[in-house]
Amino acid sequence: MTQKTRQLGAVLYPGFEMLDYFGPLELFSVMGSDVVKIHTVAEKAGPVAAAIGSEGAVGPRVLADFGFEDAPVFDMLLVPGGAGTLSELENEAMLQFLHERCAEAEIVASVCTGSALLAKAGVLNGRRATSNKQVFALATMQSDRVEWVEQARWVEDGKFFTSSGVSAGMDMALEIIRKLWGEDSATTTASYTEYTWHRDAENDPFASDLNVLARQLGMA
Amino acid sequence: MTQKTRQLGAVLYPGFEMLDYFGPLELFSVMGSDVVKIHTVAEKAGPVAAAIGSEGAVGPRVLADFGFEDAPVFDMLLVPGGAGTLSELENEAMLQFLHERCAEAEIVASVCTGSALLAKAGVLNGRRATSNKQVFALATMQSDRVEWVEQARWVEDGKFFTSSGVSAGMDMALEIIRKLWGEDSATTTASYTEYTWHRDAENDPFASDLNVLARQLGMA
Repeated sequence: MTQKTRQLGAVLYPGFEMLDYFGPLELFSVMGSDVVKIHTVAEKAGPVAAAIGSEGAVGPRVLADFGFEDAPVFDMLLVPGGAGTLSELENEAMLQFLHERCAEAEIVASVCTGSALLAKAGVLNGRRATSNKQVFALATMQSDRVEWVEQARWVEDGKFFTSSGVSAGMDMALEIIRKLWGEDSATTTASYTEYTWHRDAENDPFASDLNVLARQLGMA
Repeated sequence: MTQKTRQLGAVLYPGFEMLDYFGPLELFSVMGSDVVKIHTVAEKAGPVAAAIGSEGAVGPRVLADFGFEDAPVFDMLLVPGGAGTLSELENEAMLQFLHERCAEAEIVASVCTGSALLAKAGVLNGRRATSNKQVFALATMQSDRVEWVEQARWVEDGKFFTSSGVSAGMDMALEIIRKLWGEDSATTTASYTEYTWHRDAENDPFASDLNVLARQLGMA
């Protein structure tokens, strides 16, 4: 049986969070490039620096294969969070790219504050979604047309998968693998990466940290 | 109180495993760059492609800030595993770099098959160490002067921390953070990244997969 190769657009921006991005990409990579072909994409092709904590884009640099203008069609989109989200919320090129590309994608996955970008781009209207717990207000203030879920490791609504902070993206990615390629693929991937998969989307050990950081930052 | 900034050399090579590298770097990054300054380093400065499963170096490209020749002194070293380990075991420049830089580092941490490189470089002689469970033989065949531990999430012996496969590197990194900067730093880092820390080095849920992949590859 031949199987369609899905094209995954993994979105980069200055100050993205490393594990938001490379956690899910690690798990998708185990499937092999004939199953998921990973493409890195940013506003412009070239180097994009990761966040170091709240310091912004001063971390390791990853090369974007494509700019928004010349990127191919994507079946799947991955939108990470990170300190750089704040700037991207004001970046029309990013919001327009997400708006256009989410419409044509089969699966859209965000990690951490990545869902704030999706909400601002208007693609989560009428959907259930979650976000990083410590800065939950950053997501909720982007749209009151989203049903924000305060207690969830990740939330699935139609083609949209939004996860809680950083590490939660890996549990969400395994669920996407399970949906698209079956239970065995997901468990094999978890074993290969020696990852203890937290399978229950509603089991959220970090819900009690709600807005801990947002209050320090004067957001909530 | 002013505290020494530790310089971390994060070693890249073609076909490194994404999560081996960015899992620990994510956790160290939460400490802030005045505590841990992350430097990416490879044989030559410039782009280095990550592994996609067993396909080798066809994944996302990360920029090495430094080549081996011009890299500054490192207090900490991070050595990831991945499909590219096989080639690096024959790369004298890599083995010599590890040999020299491990001697002067305060902490040396490897993830997955990264410990095979450390063993081949001769720096683990007389030490206890572990490695990826599914291809454990790749590590053990590099040296019989290392006491290889078959059941461990990670092993600490003096300044050497070697972890089991991929995700195990994150639990090891939190233990290094605990050792160097205290319990509060480790638990705060885990909460910030919404990571459920597996604190027990001896609790290894993947030990039963010993050499599953190595047998398929004819190594064991």
